[in-house]
Amino acid sequence: MALLSSFLSLLLLLLTIASADSGPPSLFFPGLIYSSSSLKNPKPRTTITYKTHYFPQTLDHFTFHPQSYKLFPQKYLINTQFWHKNGPIFVYTGNEGDIDWFAANTGFLPDIAPKFNALLLFIEHRFYGESKPFGNKSTSTAKKLGFLNSQQAMADFAVLIRSLKKNLSSEASPVVAFGGSYGGMLAAWFRLKYPHVAIGALASSAPILQFDKITPWTSFYDAVSQDFKEASSNCFQVIKGSWPELQALSTYKQGLAELSRTFRACKQVRSIYSARDWLWEAFVYTAMVNYPTAANFLKPLPAYPVTEMCKIIDGFPPGATKLSRAFAAASLYYNYSSSQKCFALENPSDDHGLSGWNWQACTEMVMPMVVSNESMFPPSSFSYKEFSDDCEKNYGVRPRPHWVTTEYGGTDIKLVLKRFGSNIIFSNGLQDPWSRGSVLKNISDTIVALVAEKGAHHTDLRSATADDPDWLVDQRRQEVQIIEKWISDYYKDLEGA
Amino acid sequence: MALLSSFLSLLLLLLTIASADSGPPSLFFPGLIYSSSSLKNPKPRTTITYKTHYFPQTLDHFTFHPQSYKLFPQKYLINTQFWHKNGPIFVYTGNEGDIDWFAANTGFLPDIAPKFNALLLFIEHRFYGESKPFGNKSTSTAKKLGFLNSQQAMADFAVLIRSLKKNLSSEASPVVAFGGSYGGMLAAWFRLKYPHVAIGALASSAPILQFDKITPWTSFYDAVSQDFKEASSNCFQVIKGSWPELQALSTYKQGLAELSRTFRACKQVRSIYSARDWLWEAFVYTAMVNYPTAANFLKPLPAYPVTEMCKIIDGFPPGATKLSRAFAAASLYYNYSSSQKCFALENPSDDHGLSGWNWQACTEMVMPMVVSNESMFPPSSFSYKEFSDDCEKNYGVRPRPHWVTTEYGGTDIKLVLKRFGSNIIFSNGLQDPWSRGSVLKNISDTIVALVAEKGAHHTDLRSATADDPDWLVDQRRQEVQIIEKWISDYYKDLEGA
Repeated sequence: MALLSSFLSLLLLLLTIASADSGPPSLFFPGLIYSSSSLKNPKPRTTITYKTHYFPQTLDHFTFHPQSYKLFPQKYLINTQFWHKNGPIFVYTGNEGDIDWFAANTGFLPDIAPKFNALLLFIEHRFYGESKPFGNKSTSTAKKLGFLNSQQAMADFAVLIRSLKKNLSSEASPVVAFGGSYGGMLAAWFRLKYPHVAIGALASSAPILQFDKITPWTSFYDAVSQDFKEASSNCFQVIKGSWPELQALSTYKQGLAELSRTFRACKQVRSIYSARDWLWEAFVYTAMVNYPTAANFLKPLPAYPVTEMCKIIDGFPPGATKLSRAFAAASLYYNYSSSQKCFALENPSDDHGLSGWNWQACTEMVMPMVVSNESMFPPSSFSYKEFSDDCEKNYGVRPRPHWVTTEYGGTDIKLVLKRFGSNIIFSNGLQDPWSRGSVLKNISDTIVALVAEKGAHHTDLRSATADDPDWLVDQRRQEVQIIEKWISDYYKDLEGA
Repeated sequence: MALLSSFLSLLLLLLTIASADSGPPSLFFPGLIYSSSSLKNPKPRTTITYKTHYFPQTLDHFTFHPQSYKLFPQKYLINTQFWHKNGPIFVYTGNEGDIDWFAANTGFLPDIAPKFNALLLFIEHRFYGESKPFGNKSTSTAKKLGFLNSQQAMADFAVLIRSLKKNLSSEASPVVAFGGSYGGMLAAWFRLKYPHVAIGALASSAPILQFDKITPWTSFYDAVSQDFKEASSNCFQVIKGSWPELQALSTYKQGLAELSRTFRACKQVRSIYSARDWLWEAFVYTAMVNYPTAANFLKPLPAYPVTEMCKIIDGFPPGATKLSRAFAAASLYYNYSSSQKCFALENPSDDHGLSGWNWQACTEMVMPMVVSNESMFPPSSFSYKEFSDDCEKNYGVRPRPHWVTTEYGGTDIKLVLKRFGSNIIFSNGLQDPWSRGSVLKNISDTIVALVAEKGAHHTDLRSATADDPDWLVDQRRQEVQIIEKWISDYYKDLEGA
């Protein structure tokens, strides 16, 4: 039983529900109705358009085979409307999806660009979106996918930024890296590996310590569980109790038909594990995006959606099964807009082109996770051996589970970075289960942690809205202040140089 | 006319002597006799033996193709006689030759190991010595050589060191990187890129600024010329005047026969350029190893060999040609031990397996050099285009001349590292022409430059001898003090962590 969770595309490998109640539960579904007014997202303060460009990028920066020199078009988005020449360049270090999606969900940058007279640059990560070195065949074989990894991605960023600055005749412009989630890891690592390219980094919700044994393997699912338990102890218990009810459906003939009906499946489901994964994803992702305002990152959701889910569960009439309540709660995630008449449980859509992440998780991005008995999920363990065998089977290569900590560090991070490096903000919201694998304490005067108890997955990178709570306004204000200091120090040093 | 010089294996491409006198010079050779006593190298204080091991190293750290996982045996030398568990590990980051040779010429480490209770580790650079991923065929094609570069080499170091520390159950041991020349570049870059592996680096004679246009392209040959001019103005003038005399030999029928006789060639030379390169190398290398004591790094040589060469030139009877004097001076370099009865001008030996460097110079290690009119060498220019065409012709790939500064920085190094990084010593001797491309001024409190006016190419890394001048004793004393501080800070931080 090997479990490995992966940002926006959960990789559920060999997970088995460890216990099951006997007998079929009776299922019940009350339906969910939302008024259209609650669907309105708060309007962002700034609207902005980006120009799309494509940069001829080198396929392999770290070998010199004739093939390494192959160029592929790497997409990037740029906005210069606020920029003054030699002014700062704010770079979003793109992560595992198409870059337009990340740009649309990183309103913090256009919000602050006018204040800084900053140029905005969003660089798409290789092998995602339109930046596929071998076109549609890019993910077909290990021979092609072999070029997909974080080191190559950061070298792409460095090469592209250098070239852009030269073309703009603005070599002296200070560059600040921004990123969320895996993009935040890239931003932090980019500052550490390419300090000559970026003067600082805002790494939002970047779990750079989720590797090897740095962070306890139980922490992620314990954190999800804690979010639900804090919203409602009953809610937590209901979800925890729903898995045995689900398991029990597999023990009798009509179980799957009943499950399909209850879960409004568009097609009859072939396995209870489809329903399990569907529920599982809903709870995990909702915890991640437990934002204080209505938002539409992964799906359209109301403010504090974990609380809303628990209200659904807690509001059920007595006698309803736990599984039906869990389903109703999960429906909030999948169908807040009420547009779904049925659910494609076994054909989850990949709207943002995230599938390359599974390759990355099977090579370098190995973040082992287990589910403890105390969590609300079915307990599970993790075995490097089994995980490795699965990756070999699926991709023809095995993970290098200790490579990330060899290449980027992480073990004893305070000891290592106390006297090395500078200008990194690790921002986190404790609602986000990924926060447990990030840096939550200051490392030095200039490598600092900003922690928001009520924050979720890179909340700070989202557009400011009129509904933002004070702690969020304050978190962003601190970030702006710190970045201002980096930039003013840079210009001061530049003058004195 | 493209000229590119490369540490220990000079790459003389398309160099043409730009001017030539008319008429043949009459050549004259007085012969060189040295007493056997002057041949004795001062005895190093410490004798030490290393155990040889081979580590199963990954072929390609930065891609995940099935082939990337191939393992090759990487050689390393280890000595534990002074080591206490959890005591420091001093790593020599091997450069472009067999590691035994560098170990034999880095007596500084065994000299200081007892004081630090340090383990000594010399890691051979991939594709050199015995560490050839494809055995004897490793350098046969670009497809194989493609894996030879500095990024892969440093990843090798990181992986090997991590594994060794684990096997020794000594994960808390602080690691300090040491290297000279290209190995010094690797040591400095290793500290910058892998601060979680090495707590500091002594980068001796490491010209990390010899790339792009950071250091003037004329500086290297101007520095060689300055060494000779400072030893004797006449000496400089004689060498400068010898090239036209050599060129003139190509203008008449018996010129090459005469040249061969005068230069004691074992076989008649086919081109005056063989003699030119032979002289050229002698002057350049002698400037590099212009050590204050007798030494045998590249060749056995007396103390201050540039001065000795100039004594030969200045001691000639009136009427001798400049070329004959230049030859006599160069003979000091090739034949100080008087063992050569004739010289293999056209078949230079490669005793230390340095040939892989030409590949590195044709891919990432592009350090353009030109010869100014003021230097003692025939003027030459450098063209990226011509150089690139030559590399394409020789290796089937083209250089990436701006890659090193993209990957490692260097431009505005003070601006970049003033507030980033720590614990690097850049040590240099100004006799060494490579010093012009290194860091000669302190960057911060902890990234410091130690400059010895009379020092040569990584003089400080050599064994201490009874004849060492005070400035050298003092330079090494400062290095030890600084390294002591790094280590005591580390242990202090470790206790407080």
